[in-house]
Amino acid sequence: MAPAPQPASVSMRDVARRAGVSPATVSRSLRGISNVSPETRERVLQAATDLAYVRPHPVQYVGVLAQYPAHWFHASAIAAAERVVRRSNRSLVLHSIGDAEARRHLFDEVAPRHQFDAILVVSSSFTDAEQEALRKLDVPICVVGGHLPGWPRVGIDDRASAAMAVQHLVGLGHRDIGLIALEPHSAVGVETTAARRAGFDEALTRAGLEQRPEWIVAGTSNVTGGILAAERLLTQPKLPTALFAMSDEMALGALQTLRRAGIRVPAQMSVIGFDDHEMAPCGDLTTIAQPVEIQATMATTLLLDQLEGKASTGPREITLRTRLVVRGSTGPPPG
Amino acid sequence: MAPAPQPASVSMRDVARRAGVSPATVSRSLRGISNVSPETRERVLQAATDLAYVRPHPVQYVGVLAQYPAHWFHASAIAAAERVVRRSNRSLVLHSIGDAEARRHLFDEVAPRHQFDAILVVSSSFTDAEQEALRKLDVPICVVGGHLPGWPRVGIDDRASAAMAVQHLVGLGHRDIGLIALEPHSAVGVETTAARRAGFDEALTRAGLEQRPEWIVAGTSNVTGGILAAERLLTQPKLPTALFAMSDEMALGALQTLRRAGIRVPAQMSVIGFDDHEMAPCGDLTTIAQPVEIQATMATTLLLDQLEGKASTGPREITLRTRLVVRGSTGPPPG
Repeated sequence: MAPAPQPASVSMRDVARRAGVSPATVSRSLRGISNVSPETRERVLQAATDLAYVRPHPVQYVGVLAQYPAHWFHASAIAAAERVVRRSNRSLVLHSIGDAEARRHLFDEVAPRHQFDAILVVSSSFTDAEQEALRKLDVPICVVGGHLPGWPRVGIDDRASAAMAVQHLVGLGHRDIGLIALEPHSAVGVETTAARRAGFDEALTRAGLEQRPEWIVAGTSNVTGGILAAERLLTQPKLPTALFAMSDEMALGALQTLRRAGIRVPAQMSVIGFDDHEMAPCGDLTTIAQPVEIQATMATTLLLDQLEGKASTGPREITLRTRLVVRGSTGPPPG
Repeated sequence: MAPAPQPASVSMRDVARRAGVSPATVSRSLRGISNVSPETRERVLQAATDLAYVRPHPVQYVGVLAQYPAHWFHASAIAAAERVVRRSNRSLVLHSIGDAEARRHLFDEVAPRHQFDAILVVSSSFTDAEQEALRKLDVPICVVGGHLPGWPRVGIDDRASAAMAVQHLVGLGHRDIGLIALEPHSAVGVETTAARRAGFDEALTRAGLEQRPEWIVAGTSNVTGGILAAERLLTQPKLPTALFAMSDEMALGALQTLRRAGIRVPAQMSVIGFDDHEMAPCGDLTTIAQPVEIQATMATTLLLDQLEGKASTGPREITLRTRLVVRGSTGPPPG
């Protein structure tokens, strides 16, 4: 059970009144925060003793680890997790792990405090050593939109979904298909990137099409990454007639590059993305839709169930459906 | 000063070893979390006493209150705040205040715990009663991208920036200018919405142009809000030749509606937004750019300065510059 607010006959406010300080100072004194003078702290502790003040149930903290908290997938997942955490009367602590400094801080400073009662990992990868450090924390962990062997996970079938995107292009008649790939160590994690790549490969093979390495370009998981990757692709003497981009942000960036280059979409080149980002309709972008908020809500619920002993903490995998959303950025190849 | 990790001769791990439990259980026992048996807790407390274990400095928590944590402005500000908070060795607790339930939870459940040592308010409005409740928390508060009378604030001049957007349209020769407005109680807060509206009014007046109430439509602060508002506008028998949308998300939505209606941008209608959202280039959207991450970084730094006693807690206002970014969605009026 979540720590429910207990009926307290004596409140923090009563202690504050007796000690002649604010409730915030009572809180700081009882928690041992350093910016309270020893005299004040003593007076607060005395008042608490005099009134037989019982501290309310302590707050439980759910740590959310996200590679880039401002990115669409991460921000949407964090917002959904916050709702579930809040409704359980716990608090969500956000920790970015987007760079080496942030990761060092997490493992060297935050982990030894043992301040998290449970951890939600949003679409991120960890080294073996980092996974071992997470394991040593000995708290429930759940992963949304990524993979961490040994922990429960809610996500999608990235491989099948990527294959579905390419099959849509094949079905339209395309035989020259390029890929705008996420860099392996991108925001979505190594495993997700590898799975989407496997789906691309698989769909080409199934259609009897050959891969052309010069039509496979990688970039960072954002609009700029898509712009730059598409620019590199356009330096090729022969161009594909269709592109699969591993994220909508990259696809929307690629559309900008194509527009600037005067290449008409979809008449001269089709583009399909992945995500159904809220901005996908603005680019009239055909894409594979994944339910981000539902994934995060389910993962957080599963995590709290473990924390409350309602579920086993063993590996468990929930895979949600994706679907093809056809908009105006894909069509038959030219000619 | 931030609570620096203190050199402890006896660690939580030592206590755990002596009590025969995990460090996580030591942490839970010492914090009084309920899912530890009385026997285990007793054993942990005994081990801690035996080893003369001194608890490390407690973690300070910075509460971040945001209307819609998944929205671009909020998510960008939260990510920037997390960096500053983390580097000060504190933790960021995220609390959404997007609906009545979340607000009730904040003021009825979270506030009485006095768990926040400082609060960052991201672009949100509060009633007088809520402001009074915030004041009673007696902790430093700073506002980014909104207004809360009596507290320090980092933001932009919304009025002058909105006027700048309209002046750009006037300068191109437009005399029939419509407005896609944020609803007063939108994500950006009542005061921000009012200021942008005042800038629109001011620029029209200065140009000697009359307002046409039927060309002023309001919606929610997202793409769908812009789509729907533009649809309502298009029911008018006479249309404006240019639109100012109070957010890029709404502007990008409006562009979708115009595309579906076969209205060419900017040949038949110009559109200017507000924000320079990362997706603005995807719509080739002319807009007013505001520096979100810098605002949030400055506001969080100011907040921590107050917490550390380096700055006064009185009202202080930092206003950052905005700039006009001209892209392809604005041009001269037809004819």
